[in-house]
Amino acid sequence: MSESLRVDDLPLRDDLRGRSPYGAPQLDVPVALNTNENPYPPSQRLSEALGRAVADVAAGLNRYPDRDATRLRSDLAGYLGHGLDASRVWAANGSNEVLQQLLQAFGGPGRLAMGFDPSYSMHPVITRVSNTEWVSVPRADDFTLRPEDAVAAITRHQPDIVFLTSPNNPTGTALALETIDEIARAAPGMVVVDEAYAEFRREGAPSALSLLPHHPRLVVTRTMSKAFAMAGARIGYLAAHPAVIDALQLVRLPYHLSAVTQVVAATAVEFTDELLSAVKQLRDERDALVDWLRRHGFTVADSDANFVLFGEFDDRGAVFQHLLDQGILVREVGPPQWLRVTVGTPAEMSTFRQTLLDVTGTARGAAD
Amino acid sequence: MSESLRVDDLPLRDDLRGRSPYGAPQLDVPVALNTNENPYPPSQRLSEALGRAVADVAAGLNRYPDRDATRLRSDLAGYLGHGLDASRVWAANGSNEVLQQLLQAFGGPGRLAMGFDPSYSMHPVITRVSNTEWVSVPRADDFTLRPEDAVAAITRHQPDIVFLTSPNNPTGTALALETIDEIARAAPGMVVVDEAYAEFRREGAPSALSLLPHHPRLVVTRTMSKAFAMAGARIGYLAAHPAVIDALQLVRLPYHLSAVTQVVAATAVEFTDELLSAVKQLRDERDALVDWLRRHGFTVADSDANFVLFGEFDDRGAVFQHLLDQGILVREVGPPQWLRVTVGTPAEMSTFRQTLLDVTGTARGAAD
Repeated sequence: MSESLRVDDLPLRDDLRGRSPYGAPQLDVPVALNTNENPYPPSQRLSEALGRAVADVAAGLNRYPDRDATRLRSDLAGYLGHGLDASRVWAANGSNEVLQQLLQAFGGPGRLAMGFDPSYSMHPVITRVSNTEWVSVPRADDFTLRPEDAVAAITRHQPDIVFLTSPNNPTGTALALETIDEIARAAPGMVVVDEAYAEFRREGAPSALSLLPHHPRLVVTRTMSKAFAMAGARIGYLAAHPAVIDALQLVRLPYHLSAVTQVVAATAVEFTDELLSAVKQLRDERDALVDWLRRHGFTVADSDANFVLFGEFDDRGAVFQHLLDQGILVREVGPPQWLRVTVGTPAEMSTFRQTLLDVTGTARGAAD
Repeated sequence: MSESLRVDDLPLRDDLRGRSPYGAPQLDVPVALNTNENPYPPSQRLSEALGRAVADVAAGLNRYPDRDATRLRSDLAGYLGHGLDASRVWAANGSNEVLQQLLQAFGGPGRLAMGFDPSYSMHPVITRVSNTEWVSVPRADDFTLRPEDAVAAITRHQPDIVFLTSPNNPTGTALALETIDEIARAAPGMVVVDEAYAEFRREGAPSALSLLPHHPRLVVTRTMSKAFAMAGARIGYLAAHPAVIDALQLVRLPYHLSAVTQVVAATAVEFTDELLSAVKQLRDERDALVDWLRRHGFTVADSDANFVLFGEFDDRGAVFQHLLDQGILVREVGPPQWLRVTVGTPAEMSTFRQTLLDVTGTARGAAD
């Protein structure tokens, strides 16, 4: 009997019953363009530096790490600029943990978080696990967020936390500073701008970091998973008023960030120039992909990120599967007639473009 | 105005107002005996192996890690024995995160967790952050847990989660298998046995792992922070029925465990024999310390851990401070007349013993 026990036989929290674990399929394919990873692995020089740094801290691993991760937070503040210092920066195991800590501090039972769909699907997932209510407000048809719509929704729902995304995942849409500013003025609680893809934005697209001095309840989250090519190292961080950092200290697990993670992240920051030069290539490749897709009759959302949302397909599942049959994994995410593709290497993009043409000769043809 | 903003000026969750961040002071002292760290650092051979392993995985850090940490969970299952495999083992960033995930899955609003005090102070902290109610039941005067007392409290409160600790922190007290078995039979919900210090237990003291086949709602948590001397690497894990692991998959943050942490932990498991030989020394040192303290008139709780709770002091704060003035940091934790000291190296213990005699010539004399 015990062997056949299933999760629903356990005294699981009621609201978790019937749910599935969140996460994209981890398939082993020749061309993985599904999770917005950076296709350029760390250089041998960086890999060796990481190995040396870890061997160094290993000699002290019997001791707990610096609970406040002070060096890393200072290094990240230096990278972000905008006059930030360690007191205004916080780091955790991926931006998911940063977001969870924000919800633990400012959300919870009887509280409400708001997002603007389509957007990053982890925001409602983490919100619900933290026992916070979630309300979703639709974006405009072109995936932009009109400030008057956002302000109206905020005025109506009075959310404790507003999640913005710039650039937005899965659409790639950046927000104007004026939009964020208007929302921050209207919001009664915290406003979190998820800037996971900030380094990929086009010339002229702003970062919300410049608004921090004006809004003590504004938080800007970042990650080393994308531009820094460190998805495997799980380092997320945020910039905010020091009082926000004090609040997170009340809910963070003590020693949440290992000495190894701290030194790996700090070492990657030392390689900023090298890592951001690959970002430049990816931005160019992204712009070329958007142009190519449009030239070939696809509808494409403007992208400030390292991925592109394109369509529209009557049966995107068929296109997804045809691509996968040829070893190319993209993502079925966002509105039902669109697909999201991560920007890979030139060779991967060439394979993708050719295969997409072959595939949509069938799939789009059948749909048109 | 913005600069002088404080945490209570933010829309913080009400139950967090007025709280302080949890965590022992991180002071730089010659003899740190306050956080139950293992005093023996990883060997040069292990440090170098960790550096090489990280340099190897670094070349793929642009990709997300194995979300299910399958190799590591399999290695940890092999270490634990008892016929366990990866489907029955789960790992996270320190046992704190393991405990938080258990509370997220089985606790939450309207649910209740129970512990037996004095015990590990993070259990109620993590419980409250997960919006779960907490009830504390006192242990007997000798810090043991009488099964009839525990069963009576469980029958009365019907807790959703029962936290047991064996050996218990801060008292060092191990639980009899029969006690755990009776509690598991009486409990309507999950029963978590925190075995962070299991490897330090004396000959004949049991592990609750052997009870797992009989109780699908029983969970045994472990850590690599203590016996494996990896406090800085933040690796906790648990063994339980596969359905429990399925439940944790519903609340874990995707990719919660970095590729670096996974390979560091797996490498440490390869060095099990080396690391556990230092545990043997620490157990002998612990037994010698208990004998010495008793010979010198102190009251000492039986210890199956790498620390000893001793007393009784009318003013433990004075003893703590006198020791600290001499560069020795112990912990003011547990009942008010007791202090907890971690077992260090023979040299550290020698310094501690001599200084304690010097100090209590004043402090105990004044108290007696």
